[in-house]
Amino acid sequence: MRAAFEPTTDVRDYRFCHRLRVRFAETDAMGVVHHAAYLPYLEECRVEFLRSVGHPFDEIRREGFELPVVDISAHYLRPLRFDDVVDVHLSVATARGATFELGYLLCVADEARATAVSRHGVVGPAGRPVRCPDWLAALART
Amino acid sequence: MRAAFEPTTDVRDYRFCHRLRVRFAETDAMGVVHHAAYLPYLEECRVEFLRSVGHPFDEIRREGFELPVVDISAHYLRPLRFDDVVDVHLSVATARGATFELGYLLCVADEARATAVSRHGVVGPAGRPVRCPDWLAALART
Amino acid sequence: MRAAFEPTTDVRDYRFCHRLRVRFAETDAMGVVHHAAYLPYLEECRVEFLRSVGHPFDEIRREGFELPVVDISAHYLRPLRFDDVVDVHLSVATARGATFELGYLLCVADEARATAVSRHGVVGPAGRPVRCPDWLAALART
Amino acid sequence: MRAAFEPTTDVRDYRFCHRLRVRFAETDAMGVVHHAAYLPYLEECRVEFLRSVGHPFDEIRREGFELPVVDISAHYLRPLRFDDVVDVHLSVATARGATFELGYLLCVADEARATAVSRHGVVGPAGRPVRCPDWLAALART
Repeated sequence: MRAAFEPTTDVRDYRFCHRLRVRFAETDAMGVVHHAAYLPYLEECRVEFLRSVGHPFDEIRREGFELPVVDISAHYLRPLRFDDVVDVHLSVATARGATFELGYLLCVADEARATAVSRHGVVGPAGRPVRCPDWLAALART
Repeated sequence: MRAAFEPTTDVRDYRFCHRLRVRFAETDAMGVVHHAAYLPYLEECRVEFLRSVGHPFDEIRREGFELPVVDISAHYLRPLRFDDVVDVHLSVATARGATFELGYLLCVADEARATAVSRHGVVGPAGRPVRCPDWLAALART
Repeated sequence: MRAAFEPTTDVRDYRFCHRLRVRFAETDAMGVVHHAAYLPYLEECRVEFLRSVGHPFDEIRREGFELPVVDISAHYLRPLRFDDVVDVHLSVATARGATFELGYLLCVADEARATAVSRHGVVGPAGRPVRCPDWLAALART
Repeated sequence: MRAAFEPTTDVRDYRFCHRLRVRFAETDAMGVVHHAAYLPYLEECRVEFLRSVGHPFDEIRREGFELPVVDISAHYLRPLRFDDVVDVHLSVATARGATFELGYLLCVADEARATAVSRHGVVGPAGRPVRCPDWLAALART
């Protein structure tokens, strides 16, 4: 179950960055962003990353592929608050067989707030696992 | 655009009641339930209502029908808080042609907290509007 | 309960516009954006509007004020889909006494997808309703 | 960062079970429950577990304590769908110093759908980490 690697808090270990702003709806009664609200941040970053490398997720889905999340882990270092501008950094950690792993670092004004890992399956038009596309494997660090 | 009727704060005007409990994730930094989180409460009540009259929403969807929300309105009277036990009361206000309207009253310990109205279209297997089924029209007050 | 005005589908009736993109997490099993997910879009636009007129919501809250939603209504014209770029247009419809109303128009590529109205109370540091600030009243159309 | 233990798929390893039903709002355009929506399920189960052992979370918070999530991990085995009745099983894995770990198993009709771990800090009225209360430590397996 465990991710194969530990995401670092060094922005130089990440190849892509997407900036977003915390919505009020994402806060909770502790006055900070609810821990579940981080997952859509990772997803939004993932979608922008795929677009940036010429493979919009929407297009991937229209071609009959899905990239379901099979594992997720997040490590919350310091809270995010309403209206914070968050830089979500992303790297492709591994891409082997029919799965790949992404690492994330969330920062506000260069201060690390959280790290995370998502592991994905690659499911083809027939609903079966298929190999990671070559362009994705080429982006992996290992 | 406007709903044709005003939902009352008298529980006797409602034919169905579904009880749920506020999740912590549904609160916001004001310390109360975020206003957007009420809409899934209405939906959950609607689903249980349809089940109670022998037409589970899941079954309706498997038969190729959708009941998309075309209008929603909510009136927030007093805040809901974490862990509140909420009684969501529902009535079928109107069911004419290809649309129907539901009214809702949300109470905590018999105190009104919010009222709401949802208006729905009825969309058939061909993706086109179809008449409200007879069983639904029969449940309408008017 | 009803809003005092009908939001139009003419962008020229709106004074502010905020662009956002639909997240995958906001879609539902009908393949479109869930109706509840529109409310955080309105809120995000509201927050950017307040910032644009020099009164960031965060600052308003730090001064002890809240602007709770007391009524919301939305009219869904055509569905929003994953990855759609949505222009949320906003106008201040009314600002009288301790309440104000905002109108919204959501468009994708200039095509109207939804309209909405939110009515807000103005609550001061003592937890009691207070008059709309002058700068807000000055922005109202009426 | 990693959790100290692996949650099993054997219900006998769990001491508490809370049943809930999937909302339509929790599904996404893949037709299944969005991966982020599982986290509020864990939280709802956690809240009911605390109530079941005589320490309602609401009461804990009123006494000035918070139990923030510091790590979360989830392993998605098979999708959840709209209207599924989900049994969320919970066990207290560890409770040492100012942190504790909970393990979860999500089943539908006794079939494992996901496992998860949440690690929590214990923060006292002064906003500083404090030791796990004795009643919580007593519930831990180790």
